[in-house]
Amino acid sequence: MKCLLFIICFVNVQCDITYIEVKYPLTGKLAPPNVVWPHPQKMEVSNDLLYIRPNDLQVDSNIETCDIVAKAIERYKPLFFPPTLDMHQPPADTENILQTLTLNAKNNSQCEKYIELTSSEAYNLTIKQKVAVVEAESVWGLLRGLETFSQLIYINEQNYVVINSSVNITDSPRFRHRGIMLDTARHFVPVPVIKKNLDTMAYNKINVFHWHLVDDQSFPFESKTFPNLSRAGAFSPDHVYTPVDVADVIEHARLRGIRVIPEIDTPGHTFSWSKSMPELITVCWAHGKPYQAIYSIQGEMEIFNPSEPRVYSTMDALLREIKERFPSNYVHLGMDEVYDKCWLSNPNIRQWMVDNHILSTKNLQKYYADRILDITRNISVTPIVWQDVWDEKVELPPGTIIQVWKDSSDNIEFDSWASYLNRAANEGYNVILSSPWYLNYISYGKYNTDRSVMNLEFFKYYEVEPLRQFSGSNEAKERILGGEACLWGEFVDGTNLLSRFWPKASAVAERLWSPATINNSEDAQFRLDVHRCRLLRRGIPAQPILNGHCGNYEVGMPKSLINHPIFNYENPTWASTTKASLPAKVLASLSSSSTKMVTSYIYVIFFLSVGYFYH
Amino acid sequence: MKCLLFIICFVNVQCDITYIEVKYPLTGKLAPPNVVWPHPQKMEVSNDLLYIRPNDLQVDSNIETCDIVAKAIERYKPLFFPPTLDMHQPPADTENILQTLTLNAKNNSQCEKYIELTSSEAYNLTIKQKVAVVEAESVWGLLRGLETFSQLIYINEQNYVVINSSVNITDSPRFRHRGIMLDTARHFVPVPVIKKNLDTMAYNKINVFHWHLVDDQSFPFESKTFPNLSRAGAFSPDHVYTPVDVADVIEHARLRGIRVIPEIDTPGHTFSWSKSMPELITVCWAHGKPYQAIYSIQGEMEIFNPSEPRVYSTMDALLREIKERFPSNYVHLGMDEVYDKCWLSNPNIRQWMVDNHILSTKNLQKYYADRILDITRNISVTPIVWQDVWDEKVELPPGTIIQVWKDSSDNIEFDSWASYLNRAANEGYNVILSSPWYLNYISYGKYNTDRSVMNLEFFKYYEVEPLRQFSGSNEAKERILGGEACLWGEFVDGTNLLSRFWPKASAVAERLWSPATINNSEDAQFRLDVHRCRLLRRGIPAQPILNGHCGNYEVGMPKSLINHPIFNYENPTWASTTKASLPAKVLASLSSSSTKMVTSYIYVIFFLSVGYFYH
Repeated sequence: MKCLLFIICFVNVQCDITYIEVKYPLTGKLAPPNVVWPHPQKMEVSNDLLYIRPNDLQVDSNIETCDIVAKAIERYKPLFFPPTLDMHQPPADTENILQTLTLNAKNNSQCEKYIELTSSEAYNLTIKQKVAVVEAESVWGLLRGLETFSQLIYINEQNYVVINSSVNITDSPRFRHRGIMLDTARHFVPVPVIKKNLDTMAYNKINVFHWHLVDDQSFPFESKTFPNLSRAGAFSPDHVYTPVDVADVIEHARLRGIRVIPEIDTPGHTFSWSKSMPELITVCWAHGKPYQAIYSIQGEMEIFNPSEPRVYSTMDALLREIKERFPSNYVHLGMDEVYDKCWLSNPNIRQWMVDNHILSTKNLQKYYADRILDITRNISVTPIVWQDVWDEKVELPPGTIIQVWKDSSDNIEFDSWASYLNRAANEGYNVILSSPWYLNYISYGKYNTDRSVMNLEFFKYYEVEPLRQFSGSNEAKERILGGEACLWGEFVDGTNLLSRFWPKASAVAERLWSPATINNSEDAQFRLDVHRCRLLRRGIPAQPILNGHCGNYEVGMPKSLINHPIFNYENPTWASTTKASLPAKVLASLSSSSTKMVTSYIYVIFFLSVGYFYH
Repeated sequence: MKCLLFIICFVNVQCDITYIEVKYPLTGKLAPPNVVWPHPQKMEVSNDLLYIRPNDLQVDSNIETCDIVAKAIERYKPLFFPPTLDMHQPPADTENILQTLTLNAKNNSQCEKYIELTSSEAYNLTIKQKVAVVEAESVWGLLRGLETFSQLIYINEQNYVVINSSVNITDSPRFRHRGIMLDTARHFVPVPVIKKNLDTMAYNKINVFHWHLVDDQSFPFESKTFPNLSRAGAFSPDHVYTPVDVADVIEHARLRGIRVIPEIDTPGHTFSWSKSMPELITVCWAHGKPYQAIYSIQGEMEIFNPSEPRVYSTMDALLREIKERFPSNYVHLGMDEVYDKCWLSNPNIRQWMVDNHILSTKNLQKYYADRILDITRNISVTPIVWQDVWDEKVELPPGTIIQVWKDSSDNIEFDSWASYLNRAANEGYNVILSSPWYLNYISYGKYNTDRSVMNLEFFKYYEVEPLRQFSGSNEAKERILGGEACLWGEFVDGTNLLSRFWPKASAVAERLWSPATINNSEDAQFRLDVHRCRLLRRGIPAQPILNGHCGNYEVGMPKSLINHPIFNYENPTWASTTKASLPAKVLASLSSSSTKMVTSYIYVIFFLSVGYFYH
């Protein structure tokens, strides 16, 4: 880090550095404007800088025919050169100009289609003699290196686009599974918002989108096999992920090196299924009557009926469809929070348990889990489960991933997350950690020490060290695959999802990518603040984590990029309606002339407010 | 409420009602889609409905020449008829169509310019014989009645625009001062965001914008008298409220019946002044050295120097300017959190205190306050202060408003807010309450009871009853003017301000407007949820307070109105840049044809994405 810091002395970077005016300076080191987040494994950069010609940097690759690389190059240019910001051509008298960026995959015949758990994401990034090169084993490493390169570029106070003239970065992730869990059942999250979230994940080198597709509240996932599930179980016909939508999300993720892992949570959390398939769901009883809700204990029907054979045939067909449609080959089965009071309340289930010598609800849960795990075995997908089913001592197939979400700080009946991690890995299971990273648990995050003003939430997420208390073999340690930041959707939808996730999830991203030794929270707070401004420059409404400002592109300011079409996937009807209502002649003249308008760097967006008249 | 509820049986309103699919139904009453928020004092509405012709409702007034009324009529039409939503003309065979809305001020010569603390906001709204009439003493009452009328309109499932055929509402606010405090110093809030927030305040009948203009972190307010204050003290030249900006905000508020009360917080919270006027600020000492920060106690210079005569001449000139530029005739003087350690650390101040027989920092604070209050007396503005200066027993001029922000739940050294309210009112001061309404103290708000799922934050804000423990004369009770929801800006800027304020501040709005008997939180939770969907239909990204959905206009969905130009005040450079880069011919053909495109309801926004090319 030390060498980077000298940049501040070399170039005045006021336009990009925040918090200069803060009353309470933080004790961490001031971060340079081109700080790389998450921090690379090894990094040497010079103080000297090269200029870059805005919109005119040549980017080549030895696998340019690979769509992932070709599209990434397209995508990154507006990230190198944010479309609203002032950028000058380099001074006429300089030769210190970066000539090219080259992306070289070591095996240049290989254009993989989907990133996998075992894919290499390692890369080297060098800049010397006015040439930048990213080298990697795989296209995924090239994507990560391209992201790092994009972060090294910045616009200095004189509005020149610059980058360090000598760079030597060797980088690879510490953990293989670095995920975000999004709940699209408590509130529907429209595809354009999911896509923008995927973009932000890529900016943080996060490689798993765990899609909590359905839950009690709604069933937005449109199954081809069982279309009635969403027809009846979605909030409305507008609140559905069609097969085209799902494929669109998977493709968007694929191009960014992100795996999409769907979750179909059973046997609990299934009230929305009851709208179309009531026969699968246990009717809960109370006071001698069926369909009775006691909301702290049970809904009226909220959990599968394990005695019902159609449960298994339905799950078999649905999981086969999932395997076909989601290329990750992983499926999250949920299996959390199986509240057994409802099962016991139902006389038919009680009788069935007796008839089948199942003498406890634990064993009933085990019976259910075993049958579902048989299905995943038969169709060769790897199951992921919330830890609950493992807590119940169900034997899980080898390779199963256990997602740890409990911690003694939430419930005195729970152990610490570290002990769960330890135990599961030592028992031979793969594990991912989420307990300390439930981003929906928001709090007002400020406290003063004698030396600093701190952001509590950031610290809480950042200071987690997954292996701090790990004891086990190296082999067992390898089974700790990583973790996920989770955002449950009770109070989250398109209005606040992005600002609530970011930049808090970035803290998790660095923890899972960077070496364990990168753990100075006060430094990191500064660095993340710079990265947060970068996210704003990319159209992401990441919320502030400290007092201060980013620049004249903040949300609501004239150069804001938040609604810039290049960083957004929405296509509001009002835009197309007004377009459609234009005379054909105007449209024709526009589209014929549009080609003339193409410069080296053009997205032609024409936004003309002629006025607003109301009789 | 009962009669309203029958509407649900009468018309299927699924498109506008949320939470039909919720697993855990709430125990409160289901709210109709045209619930009025805040709840009126008295309200009778029929089950029968009238149709309204979309975009074609005649609105008259007996004071149409009054700009406030004329502009309100313009403004409300897109609120009656949200521009992206499907609306049919009434069936051909019906005569049940609302003919007109008339806005009648009782004194029709009176077009007041600015709302005041004592202004009447009362109104009656009736609909009978296909005619709607709002009657009020003042234009401000007309604005409130127009808002209520706009909320009664809804689009039913068949996409007809309807309203109750018989309505009888008598309404007026319970408290006169219903405010929002916005901190624009810890982060800058751009004017377009402030305006959108003012719109939302009007939708909630909030009538005071308390503008916490400056603080330690920055001085964005551009003073005409002392331009260096913002030149040196703002985050950047882009992070400044120019005189034009301030006038623009005041005018925007004026047209909506909102008073703008500026706060210039002294003698503490003044670090940003030190950038241009270090002579006014106390240098803090520690360990025998000046300019020493101990952040839990003092900054290096963060508090006025009361021994410095230029402090008073500067404040005199600045407050005179404030009086001239802000028509409310109130000024908030701050006077909170005067941490005296810095004063005592400074040898010059200690000597001056001895010389002037000021034997404690309490008395020093009193000395300062007395001199500033002399200024406000001389220039005839009414001061508002945070309670601290009153806690220190400073005698305040009659009419001073004390803003209560402390409570025993925050700090064991504090009393309960109720006791402060009691005491201040009984001592003859006017009082406003903020302690329970610090909206920056966010928390994850969900808990289950046997019968309900609750939103904790909503309940916390809604269940406050300002007079619950009041004991005093009716005269003293009258001095409890109302309250304010405050949002301190440590972690808030344009990215999240609106979603963080709304709909939580709506809970405060109803508490301050509606009768104390409107206090069933579970019912209110449903009603507010409907109102929250209304805010979305008006382009406000109000966040969800419960599970569920609003409709196909949610953020990110095709009919979303969040970025619709009619509800936004931003003018991003990328829009005008791309416009400017178009060939002149195209522009000419567009503007000539634009007049042809004007229909009965047109804002011509042309948003055409021809493509995005990058070499």
